[in-house]
Amino acid sequence: MSVSLGELAVRFGCELRGDPDTRVERVGTLAGAGARSIAFLANPRYRAQLAATRAGAVVLNAASAAECPTAVLLCDNPYATFARIAAILHPLAQPEPGVHASAAVAASARIDPSAQVGAYTIVGPNAVVGARAFIGPHCSLEEGVTVAADVRLVARVSLCRAAQIGARAVLQPGVVIGGDGFGFAPERGTWLKVPQLGAVRIGADVEIGANTTIDRGAIDDTVIEEGVKLDNLVQIGHNVHIGAHSALAACVGVAGSTTIGKRCMIGGGTGFAGHLTRPGVYSGTLPVEEARAWRRLVARFKRSGLLETRVRALERAAGLKSEQEEDHD
Amino acid sequence: MSVSLGELAVRFGCELRGDPDTRVERVGTLAGAGARSIAFLANPRYRAQLAATRAGAVVLNAASAAECPTAVLLCDNPYATFARIAAILHPLAQPEPGVHASAAVAASARIDPSAQVGAYTIVGPNAVVGARAFIGPHCSLEEGVTVAADVRLVARVSLCRAAQIGARAVLQPGVVIGGDGFGFAPERGTWLKVPQLGAVRIGADVEIGANTTIDRGAIDDTVIEEGVKLDNLVQIGHNVHIGAHSALAACVGVAGSTTIGKRCMIGGGTGFAGHLTRPGVYSGTLPVEEARAWRRLVARFKRSGLLETRVRALERAAGLKSEQEEDHD
Amino acid sequence: MSVSLGELAVRFGCELRGDPDTRVERVGTLAGAGARSIAFLANPRYRAQLAATRAGAVVLNAASAAECPTAVLLCDNPYATFARIAAILHPLAQPEPGVHASAAVAASARIDPSAQVGAYTIVGPNAVVGARAFIGPHCSLEEGVTVAADVRLVARVSLCRAAQIGARAVLQPGVVIGGDGFGFAPERGTWLKVPQLGAVRIGADVEIGANTTIDRGAIDDTVIEEGVKLDNLVQIGHNVHIGAHSALAACVGVAGSTTIGKRCMIGGGTGFAGHLTRPGVYSGTLPVEEARAWRRLVARFKRSGLLETRVRALERAAGLKSEQEEDHD
Repeated sequence: MSVSLGELAVRFGCELRGDPDTRVERVGTLAGAGARSIAFLANPRYRAQLAATRAGAVVLNAASAAECPTAVLLCDNPYATFARIAAILHPLAQPEPGVHASAAVAASARIDPSAQVGAYTIVGPNAVVGARAFIGPHCSLEEGVTVAADVRLVARVSLCRAAQIGARAVLQPGVVIGGDGFGFAPERGTWLKVPQLGAVRIGADVEIGANTTIDRGAIDDTVIEEGVKLDNLVQIGHNVHIGAHSALAACVGVAGSTTIGKRCMIGGGTGFAGHLTRPGVYSGTLPVEEARAWRRLVARFKRSGLLETRVRALERAAGLKSEQEEDHD
Repeated sequence: MSVSLGELAVRFGCELRGDPDTRVERVGTLAGAGARSIAFLANPRYRAQLAATRAGAVVLNAASAAECPTAVLLCDNPYATFARIAAILHPLAQPEPGVHASAAVAASARIDPSAQVGAYTIVGPNAVVGARAFIGPHCSLEEGVTVAADVRLVARVSLCRAAQIGARAVLQPGVVIGGDGFGFAPERGTWLKVPQLGAVRIGADVEIGANTTIDRGAIDDTVIEEGVKLDNLVQIGHNVHIGAHSALAACVGVAGSTTIGKRCMIGGGTGFAGHLTRPGVYSGTLPVEEARAWRRLVARFKRSGLLETRVRALERAAGLKSEQEEDHD
Repeated sequence: MSVSLGELAVRFGCELRGDPDTRVERVGTLAGAGARSIAFLANPRYRAQLAATRAGAVVLNAASAAECPTAVLLCDNPYATFARIAAILHPLAQPEPGVHASAAVAASARIDPSAQVGAYTIVGPNAVVGARAFIGPHCSLEEGVTVAADVRLVARVSLCRAAQIGARAVLQPGVVIGGDGFGFAPERGTWLKVPQLGAVRIGADVEIGANTTIDRGAIDDTVIEEGVKLDNLVQIGHNVHIGAHSALAACVGVAGSTTIGKRCMIGGGTGFAGHLTRPGVYSGTLPVEEARAWRRLVARFKRSGLLETRVRALERAAGLKSEQEEDHD
């Protein structure tokens, strides 16, 4: 597969500075690309690498075009344009229609003839698999699961009873959709399991990372709206609702019944139980430190109450009025 | 399936205010339930929804009975009573006794005739599966594993060598029991693997969430006592001991050889290495913030030593004696 | 299997104090070992257990030899010597060469005749499996995967396209190598997927814990150098580079493109995005607290800006010059 810069410029509305007949075959990094590769510059952190690049062409915006020693494709959003070019040069394998001989498909399941079902995969009663869907190996679609068109379950994905997966969603290996929520009623010092009866509904164009888990709702459903991106090892509790186009980085944990608005971005490792309703960028993790320095920081954190007390004493001695105190311990 | 309110009142010792012949068919939320559904009120947060509910009946306690516009089932622990009613209206499918044709069962394994073993599941030499156990698809029971009566392995659960699972335990998809602990001896700048030879023993009525991992002991066993509830993506290191009826929310990590007492509740995302021996509620995660505000908080946290120094200087200037300092850096 | 203390002393260069003909059969803890078991003492925390041990022998160093009531094997690194003795007394089962009848192996795959491939495992086109490798059940080796000699994939491991696994690496159940990285270009309020085209290269003697995930590189590869040890539920983003012999404890999350140097040790639950280039011990998690005390600590953390303001006012009143302030809010 190769494509000319002229073709790319026309197709993606870029301004081309260079020979339209130059052909590129693959993508590369600024530092690693050769003459048959196309690179991109979006993050200013990599700008220093531009002058020395040997790429056949670079996708970038006007701010850095002058510094590029090779052909350029100028556009407003180089990262998005690069993503589209990469998808052309390195197309995903298309599903090979059919059901693997080793798969176990219930008689009442409906699988579109254009879909692919992999080895050792189970499709339960009344499950529905849409057109061109790719259901990889070792997956399990329990009773009543619905998988829309063009979905890709890479491998070893569990879709528990009645889960719904929207069109073009991509689920990486190890994902569990619709495990029971963490619902237990305390009773005389033990826990009584509360049946988890809702389902999980996942919108179109959602991506879910490896080993991420999304629990079914307790009564109503857990809902992930269209375009949401979840990284690896994310935990979504029962009855969570995540608004369209929000992105949660790896290892985020979202407690049950939390609502996250549309277009929120949540930093890696953050855990929360409250609601986020405004679009925005959110964080809640402390940066790593050398362990000795860290222990000192933690010790100070633990005695922060003492520091407040000392400041209060100073204020009293100085005749300064304390600001309002929020706790007294 | 439907049941009359009169029957429910007798069965669960509730006071019924309403028509004993009214029948309900399913559970619902206060906001969503219709005339054939039964709802409950336990969390005061939802009390405002009571006045407008259209549920056929509501399970609640005396404090809010007067505000309910529909039939009520009065009891002391509405959440637990609701859990029992839900289990009646929405019973779990019973195991269908037998071994799926595609399962691979060792000749020396003993599987109770009333148990079910799913597709593509492996039962190794000398493994034992108890009465009415449900071993879902894609599970792997290695040599010497014991699964007691009425256990439910939902799907894709790995039970490594010699793991023991107590009666009625429920393990969600992706759980790994008995992977090797993280045991490596440092030696000349590299790591030497220490054989992990213990097992994992899990008590009765334990529930383990999706993709949670529990490591085998190094020499002695890792032990999870009866009634413990572990949410999704929890990590339990080797030789941990968790006391009966403790509950660990999602994404908690417990370092090797930690002891947690009975009836502890651990908040989501908490990591710890120390021991918790008293029953109690424990936490250790910071709440999410808008990212800019968060960066300021973190910057202050990192310079907390400077603030202590400044307070010390003020105290000296004011002739106040400092409280005892715990570190000097 | 049993071995004499004399044999062990010669083999591992220990000084033996005791009868060389005493035989031991298994390992045990100081507290639990009987006369046919060998124990060790490395962590001073367990020293108090030494006087009462009933072990047949104890591996320890000179500092505590005098206190031992039984035979001792003296050496400089008791933990490493114990690891080697344990491996002799409790040898791992050797792979049984051959491919399970239920495995699905592509015609173009090359599997060494001395390797074992388990039940329901998939070996894709052009995949290569080296000598004496153990590929457990429910694994999936996609196209072009290379597994070197003596590797052990315990069970249910996903190796996505073109992943390379070095000699003697051990991967616990549920590991996902080469899932897509979290790469999305923002465009008009939605996210456009950026094709993830790199691979994952894992060096020799790496160990990877249960349900850990390592993403493929976006363009270049994600690299884990030889001897690295990753615990359970660790997340490694795309294009991360981890230097030889570093060890990451459970639940660590490493953001994309992070570089970690050789011989770093990262405490459990730590998340980071920056680079660590010096060998060292790193941490970043707060210790668990009783929940009420924790809420007070968090409240103080959130109002730390107020405390700085108060100290500034005091300094002004006292005529003391503030240290440099880093933010004003």
